[in-house]
Amino acid sequence: MDYQVVKVKEDILIENQKKAQEVREFLKSRGIYFINVMASPGAGKTTLLTNLINRLKDKYKIGVLEADIDGEVDADRIVKNTGVRAIQVHTSGACHLTAQMVSDALREFNIDGLNLIFLENIGNLVCPAEFDTGSNINMMLLSVPEGEDKPLKYPLMFEVSDIAVITKIDTLPIFDFDFNKCEEYIHRRNKNAKVFKVSAINDEGVASIADYLISIIK
Amino acid sequence: MDYQVVKVKEDILIENQKKAQEVREFLKSRGIYFINVMASPGAGKTTLLTNLINRLKDKYKIGVLEADIDGEVDADRIVKNTGVRAIQVHTSGACHLTAQMVSDALREFNIDGLNLIFLENIGNLVCPAEFDTGSNINMMLLSVPEGEDKPLKYPLMFEVSDIAVITKIDTLPIFDFDFNKCEEYIHRRNKNAKVFKVSAINDEGVASIADYLISIIK
Repeated sequence: MDYQVVKVKEDILIENQKKAQEVREFLKSRGIYFINVMASPGAGKTTLLTNLINRLKDKYKIGVLEADIDGEVDADRIVKNTGVRAIQVHTSGACHLTAQMVSDALREFNIDGLNLIFLENIGNLVCPAEFDTGSNINMMLLSVPEGEDKPLKYPLMFEVSDIAVITKIDTLPIFDFDFNKCEEYIHRRNKNAKVFKVSAINDEGVASIADYLISIIK
Repeated sequence: MDYQVVKVKEDILIENQKKAQEVREFLKSRGIYFINVMASPGAGKTTLLTNLINRLKDKYKIGVLEADIDGEVDADRIVKNTGVRAIQVHTSGACHLTAQMVSDALREFNIDGLNLIFLENIGNLVCPAEFDTGSNINMMLLSVPEGEDKPLKYPLMFEVSDIAVITKIDTLPIFDFDFNKCEEYIHRRNKNAKVFKVSAINDEGVASIADYLISIIK
């Protein structure tokens, strides 16, 4: 059974890669930069996105794809707290977004005039890392309550992420979290990963990420 | 592509179900009760297991299967802090444990004399819920920092879990987490789910879970 799973998965990943490249080229032709945001459930993706968007929305016309297995809570929060366009994408139980799902969502979404799209992927440190979504960069979040050992346990997520954001740093006093160790573990997986620290509820550190994104968005 | 994925997945799940039933029957014939523990990364599975095992180890001969994509940290922690037998199972990148992997691990593990086995599944609120591991019951953990809305977003995990443990309740003062809402959301998914609250680092609430497990383990 295991071989069968592996073989089918290889085929799916090759197919996905092609579709992702199509998505990337399509968005490039429209002048849209695309950022895929990944993390565990509850790491603070929606809160960080809200604050980032509020810092970037005067400079870019922003749209958000909110992926969830079920529920509408995140798209509602984004629209209510930032005023930008958002669409909720349901994955029908799937643990990640494929490039095909992104492509379908972009067809239903009104992208006219947009030049920056964020995708909030399914809360999961495993599967989303395997599927290229067609993004220009991947940003992952790791929250302090999760612990600094996560790059050891979920290597691929850290390998594929260009940006790693340590979130909820306001909780450092109550959790046993070694920031230096964490940064070292992240760089073991990807020596070029850019690491940031934020407390999104206090808007601490968010400006640095916004500035960095502005510096790389073409 | 989507149809292909769905069809293959159905076959895999049917195959897995058969194997899970075999595992269950094999363990029953040996007089071993088997508990599958699931949660997001960093929800506190290893810490809770350590405390639970220390409360149960005089009554049962306990073994632990520690599943991770990579790393040995959890098995080491369990052995060091409880003295019970543990084996680290690597899933080679997979986001969940199949019944076949459990069966293979049990073959390598010395189960002689054991009467209770815990499986610490991969940190993931999605995929592990789809795969019956051959366990007698499923216990899931949701940590306060993750937020009370998780049963809305990850329905299957809550549907298949007999026990839901809200962990890290010592952090309630600093997180916006509505326990009553959370319990209501959990019971929407599974009205029979038994809900507990713990702060494993303070050993608060752990005794209630231990007592409950003693009451149900045959």
